[in-house]
Amino acid sequence: MQTEKLLKQISFIKEIDKLKYIQRKTKLFNSNRPENDAEHSWHLAMMTIVLAEHSDRPIDVLKVLKMVLIHDIVEIDAGDTFIYDTTKNHTNTDEELIAAERIFGLLPTEQKEEFITIWKEFEESITDEAKFARSMDRFEPLLQNTSNNGGTWAEFNVPYQKVYDKKIVIKDGSTEIWNYAEHLIKESVEKGILIK
Amino acid sequence: MQTEKLLKQISFIKEIDKLKYIQRKTKLFNSNRPENDAEHSWHLAMMTIVLAEHSDRPIDVLKVLKMVLIHDIVEIDAGDTFIYDTTKNHTNTDEELIAAERIFGLLPTEQKEEFITIWKEFEESITDEAKFARSMDRFEPLLQNTSNNGGTWAEFNVPYQKVYDKKIVIKDGSTEIWNYAEHLIKESVEKGILIK
Repeated sequence: MQTEKLLKQISFIKEIDKLKYIQRKTKLFNSNRPENDAEHSWHLAMMTIVLAEHSDRPIDVLKVLKMVLIHDIVEIDAGDTFIYDTTKNHTNTDEELIAAERIFGLLPTEQKEEFITIWKEFEESITDEAKFARSMDRFEPLLQNTSNNGGTWAEFNVPYQKVYDKKIVIKDGSTEIWNYAEHLIKESVEKGILIK
Repeated sequence: MQTEKLLKQISFIKEIDKLKYIQRKTKLFNSNRPENDAEHSWHLAMMTIVLAEHSDRPIDVLKVLKMVLIHDIVEIDAGDTFIYDTTKNHTNTDEELIAAERIFGLLPTEQKEEFITIWKEFEESITDEAKFARSMDRFEPLLQNTSNNGGTWAEFNVPYQKVYDKKIVIKDGSTEIWNYAEHLIKESVEKGILIK
């Protein structure tokens, strides 16, 4: 029985390799090379470890790590949705729920349920852990775009207010990080890499 | 003061983006595309979460996650060393120690010290956490090579005994996972993708 469990876990481990092929719109720092979802998830995990102390409220860091490590796995089936794409829903779409059932469904039942619960918690952004995880997810591309002369803002003509409205959720996780993020956004307007 | 700390942390977060350019010898699953260190670290983190229950001894999962997420960061300066390269040292080389000082040194002092301590603990492979992290690091390329008709074993003519000697450290972390790994190695010999 133990081995059967291990075999299920290994089939999941093999399947999620596909996350390395899912390209995001955002590019690496000072680069034209698109980031993939596995690299992005690793970076968010590192940011979580490094920046956790700036959370406004106490958080379970292990739980946040699980969230950011798995948050994009559904994109293996559902694809990446660009954050400024207004023609698509961004959370818990039917497509994503089906993807979660299929991919996390490769795991033993208990783990499947744990992972789906954590993924939904992230998507709902209500708990302190989910809010902090979400801050990391919004903060990384801000750092990338400012390193790339506006990056996807320039590429897709995203104006200041849309950027501001998406980024302000960083504040729900950390006032300290939001203060810095807001400063970066204002500086981007001054530099002309974000149009007000 | 708080902001100064955050600025140091952000300079570290930007610097480690370079891990996405460090190519490993091992290829992705069923693929010819080399894996990079950031993808590899994400995969080990996922494996840690999924497989932690198979550790022979109780482990602090958060600590193992920190280990696998940061274990290759020194390669930004020191480069990747192929595990079957007998002309090079593999642990705590001077080059890696200098890299650790420079890269983790971007962080505030306390965090720098924490990260260097965790990285050294991983390299020394003495604690239960380090042993489990090491099992993950040896198990992933085994799964990849068997999915790629021998992968780097075939590409660099690595014989059975050398593979076996490197992989048996998986046993120090988990007897259960080692039993499966040993079965995979034997099967690879039978299939002719690993030469005895």
